[in-house]
Amino acid sequence: MATGTINVSVENIFPLIKKFLYSDHEIFLRELISNATDATLKLKHLTAIGEAKGVEYGNPHIEVKIDKDNGTLHIKDQGIGMTKDEVEKYINQVAFSGAEEFLEKYKDSAKDSGIIGHFGLGFYSAFMVAEKVEIITKSYKGGTAAHWTCEGSTEFTLEDAEKETRGTEIILHISEDEKEFLEEGRISELLTKYNKFMPIPIKFGTKTETLPKPEGLTEEEEKDYKAETKEVDNIINNPNPAWTKAPTELEEEDYKGFYRELYPMQFEEPLFNIHLNVDYPFNLTGILYFPRLGQDMNIQKDRIQLYQNQVFVTDNVEGIVPEFLTMLRGVIDSPDIPLNVSRSYLQADGAVKKISAYITRKVADKLKSLFNENREDFESKWNDIKIVIEYGMLSEDKFFDKAKSFTLYPTVNDTYFTLEELKEKIKDNQTDKDDKLVVLYASDKDAQHSYIQAAKDKGYQVLLLDSPIVPHLIQKLETSEENISFVRVDGDHIDNLIKKDEEQISKLSDEEKEKVKEAFETVVPKETYTVQLEAMDSTASPLIITQPEFMRRMKDMQKTGGGGMFGMGNMPDMYNLVVNTNHELIAEILETKTKKKQERLISQSLDLARLSQGLLKGEALTNFIKRSFEMIK
Amino acid sequence: MATGTINVSVENIFPLIKKFLYSDHEIFLRELISNATDATLKLKHLTAIGEAKGVEYGNPHIEVKIDKDNGTLHIKDQGIGMTKDEVEKYINQVAFSGAEEFLEKYKDSAKDSGIIGHFGLGFYSAFMVAEKVEIITKSYKGGTAAHWTCEGSTEFTLEDAEKETRGTEIILHISEDEKEFLEEGRISELLTKYNKFMPIPIKFGTKTETLPKPEGLTEEEEKDYKAETKEVDNIINNPNPAWTKAPTELEEEDYKGFYRELYPMQFEEPLFNIHLNVDYPFNLTGILYFPRLGQDMNIQKDRIQLYQNQVFVTDNVEGIVPEFLTMLRGVIDSPDIPLNVSRSYLQADGAVKKISAYITRKVADKLKSLFNENREDFESKWNDIKIVIEYGMLSEDKFFDKAKSFTLYPTVNDTYFTLEELKEKIKDNQTDKDDKLVVLYASDKDAQHSYIQAAKDKGYQVLLLDSPIVPHLIQKLETSEENISFVRVDGDHIDNLIKKDEEQISKLSDEEKEKVKEAFETVVPKETYTVQLEAMDSTASPLIITQPEFMRRMKDMQKTGGGGMFGMGNMPDMYNLVVNTNHELIAEILETKTKKKQERLISQSLDLARLSQGLLKGEALTNFIKRSFEMIK
Repeated sequence: MATGTINVSVENIFPLIKKFLYSDHEIFLRELISNATDATLKLKHLTAIGEAKGVEYGNPHIEVKIDKDNGTLHIKDQGIGMTKDEVEKYINQVAFSGAEEFLEKYKDSAKDSGIIGHFGLGFYSAFMVAEKVEIITKSYKGGTAAHWTCEGSTEFTLEDAEKETRGTEIILHISEDEKEFLEEGRISELLTKYNKFMPIPIKFGTKTETLPKPEGLTEEEEKDYKAETKEVDNIINNPNPAWTKAPTELEEEDYKGFYRELYPMQFEEPLFNIHLNVDYPFNLTGILYFPRLGQDMNIQKDRIQLYQNQVFVTDNVEGIVPEFLTMLRGVIDSPDIPLNVSRSYLQADGAVKKISAYITRKVADKLKSLFNENREDFESKWNDIKIVIEYGMLSEDKFFDKAKSFTLYPTVNDTYFTLEELKEKIKDNQTDKDDKLVVLYASDKDAQHSYIQAAKDKGYQVLLLDSPIVPHLIQKLETSEENISFVRVDGDHIDNLIKKDEEQISKLSDEEKEKVKEAFETVVPKETYTVQLEAMDSTASPLIITQPEFMRRMKDMQKTGGGGMFGMGNMPDMYNLVVNTNHELIAEILETKTKKKQERLISQSLDLARLSQGLLKGEALTNFIKRSFEMIK
Repeated sequence: MATGTINVSVENIFPLIKKFLYSDHEIFLRELISNATDATLKLKHLTAIGEAKGVEYGNPHIEVKIDKDNGTLHIKDQGIGMTKDEVEKYINQVAFSGAEEFLEKYKDSAKDSGIIGHFGLGFYSAFMVAEKVEIITKSYKGGTAAHWTCEGSTEFTLEDAEKETRGTEIILHISEDEKEFLEEGRISELLTKYNKFMPIPIKFGTKTETLPKPEGLTEEEEKDYKAETKEVDNIINNPNPAWTKAPTELEEEDYKGFYRELYPMQFEEPLFNIHLNVDYPFNLTGILYFPRLGQDMNIQKDRIQLYQNQVFVTDNVEGIVPEFLTMLRGVIDSPDIPLNVSRSYLQADGAVKKISAYITRKVADKLKSLFNENREDFESKWNDIKIVIEYGMLSEDKFFDKAKSFTLYPTVNDTYFTLEELKEKIKDNQTDKDDKLVVLYASDKDAQHSYIQAAKDKGYQVLLLDSPIVPHLIQKLETSEENISFVRVDGDHIDNLIKKDEEQISKLSDEEKEKVKEAFETVVPKETYTVQLEAMDSTASPLIITQPEFMRRMKDMQKTGGGGMFGMGNMPDMYNLVVNTNHELIAEILETKTKKKQERLISQSLDLARLSQGLLKGEALTNFIKRSFEMIK
């Protein structure tokens, strides 16, 4: 038996690292600026703990510069720098992480220094876009500056350099097919995407600033006055974004300002925010915003940005933030989320599970406190936030339990009840003869107007539940609450929706009823309508078209996916045609002698009932209108 | 000046390769089966060219086996195998690709051998899921078998092994937190995802097969007969999928069968297919299918699968297939598409651009030939394919030009015209007094029924254009065709939509007209309706509500994104109320003496006109219906 050591050949692996290190070439800039940031933060730490005697930390920045004439891109920092020996150690050894070594050495003090680096590979990403890379660096400790050059092979040169100031400059000779990275617009886009909130100021180009107008000008001077301008450094990042501060340091206006920073193209203000801040058992900061959401569940996703130590990572937070909260916006910053792993791995990761649960809890707590502190305001925001809450109730049982105390059920008259309040309010009037509490709801105030009106006339409360997932949600409520059922107002004639003991007396005899039924059944297509005679109030409508709750809900659920019985969505629509035997018009139809006239009366009445349910369309509607114009004349 | 060589330290890089080689751990199985496939294909090639004397290639397969008791996963091939020396060379050198070396050596003959490997890293992906990996291998050349073992550090052992048959077995000792890869269901899922069409048969477990019933049984025997079963190898892949064959070898039924193989859960058959097959200037094979598409542009995307040498790569073909064709389904297999690169890089890649253009051209050619060969059939499929074609016309100018010859314009009566045919058909009747050809269209047969009817009464053709992108498409047609304009039937009174020279004589005097206008304007809300008097046919409707084409189109375009003027989508809806001064009812309104009665007549008429445009809703509709029931009585 022989033993040996696996060998990694530089010639073989180096091209792979260069080409496939990251799937996206543009990442090189993020990596190099992360390195420059680390170099600066290391110096900050050393001066802070007194290990860099005689060194002034000052106000260092990082500079990014394009030199189009020479085809180069420069990244220059004023950080810790490297001696020639350190270049040997850190650069010429691929995958040796200086950051890891630093953190190891200064374990206790440097824990919160914000240093980013991990794997010592980031620098080599430069070769994804450059055919030649130079490093000119001078250590804060003094000594000769070093100049390292590599043309993409595994050969490098290292020599002395002239450099007065401490820090490192990386010079990328951009290769022929990556010339986009010499465009100001492209670099500016990348800096905005990845580095907008990094902790060291980043300078890119200059901008023109208008000087303040001098005071005390004469009228004459005022007329001739031309604003003076000067060129100033253009700092592209905000090194101290709101989420890195303590909630106590921030006013409402600061949160709103940060929202505008995050989404400059978004004109609408967020409704409210949730500041996340925890460091045990995992480290996470961030600010989440509730934007105004309409009914649309899809359009708004993927706006939450994930950062690690203020470096942008991704705006796909699937698996980290619970699905229902991906409709929110904002920022999450956590070094504890494993990257570069599959989503299924992510979801199984213990830390990520805890993070997801923490975020859910914080959101629920915030909603609860908003509800408690200013109910009126909470009610005014309800329609813009309900989709998140309702979706959360459906998908996360823990959230469902918490949400009970602040979930609102608005009526068609814009009164907002919690479920408990609603139950209290309706228990006297809307308990049916089997002791079941019946909650009436509408999904569309306009389309179901006449049904809503009929329910209101009885003194019933009618909820307005118009989210697409409502059928699923009420299904869940009916199984979790006892003795409660939800019915849509057009599910049946109102006296049947909430069955009481009292019986309406029919004006018609059984024989007469039979005749009415017969008359209707000869005119009305029976594959669509089932004729149902009811002794209703004489002032109620003579004809109503209803669709049984069960059937309609199954069809609705099928439309939004899941639930419902297989194939229900494709069943033809079937309705009940409720005939009010106590209405004058029905008596008149019964008494009409000529068959033809009777049929005409029934047809016109059916058309009106169909209109009320939105079922009169196309040619039938055109004919109805024509007939009606005739009748006016 | 010093020069030197960049050093990759095994200790540093090895953990990174193990952990971050692929973002998705499950990839290891694809990689190991690709290696096993390569080992088999190499042997096939060597026997074919006579370099493996005395070796019988036979019918080799690859076997995948789970050993739950020992916590191991086995991948075993009957391929070329390795000698001890070759293990040293290929395995102990990370990133040394045996496949590349083989292809280099047998450049000319092996070009089409289907060998997959590239970078010599695939094998190491085993360490993403295994804490210990063993290789037992015996070369086809004979000699002692070798046994290599590595426990995840850079140390390995290599010794002699007992193995009688040629080929390689990889044994993965699955690590604690990757136990999912010992589940039959999980492995089966991965094999189906990545290896379903790989060229060497893959055996995973056994299945039970029913033996054929013996013939000539007596009645008695028949009664007692129990089907006999046997265990047979379960081959999970189809090594010769349809796209690897020549179109001439395939019948219609083969294409449909392959569709069912690709989408076993899809019950609907595809409408037709396009066989892609090109090897210069790039190599691409594949089959695309047109599924039945409804109106929904979003739901169906991302069903095209990308393969390389029969290995599944991804089902995200964004950037490779033109956007409008991502609604299709099927398979594309090309070794010439760079992977692991950013989408923007992909789109700029020359080969990819050519591939995209080739696919577009093949699709256009296929559509053209379907149109030419069986127009009736093509017409019957139109509504299921139009969304792709219309979207393609909008987004790709080259496709727009090609599509002219087969794009259909259906009328509300289900007659299908090409644009040229339509122009010919309507030029006599629908050219207005300014010599402009006016194409009438509707977007909804039901909702616009009365307007369609009015146009038909004039002998006009009315198209039914109901795709969501139609407003954009007709905008494009109007600018690319000369002297043609599209107007929706409810854009104005029909005589105004196609203005001819003839003038209708008004029955009312100017003074009377003024009175009618005044009467209407006092009743009708002027922020919504502009009253417009027209001397129309006395049999036409007394009142019509129209919305000017320009305004409606802008609003429609805003809804589907892009085009239109900023903010138009939020403008309140404004309509014209066209009063037919030649209609009896208007004369009657004019003559009505009491103000109150006149107002009631106007209100009821307006309600009927609103009904016709779908504008009578909610309380207004309820009141209208109530009033109408009164009137019947």
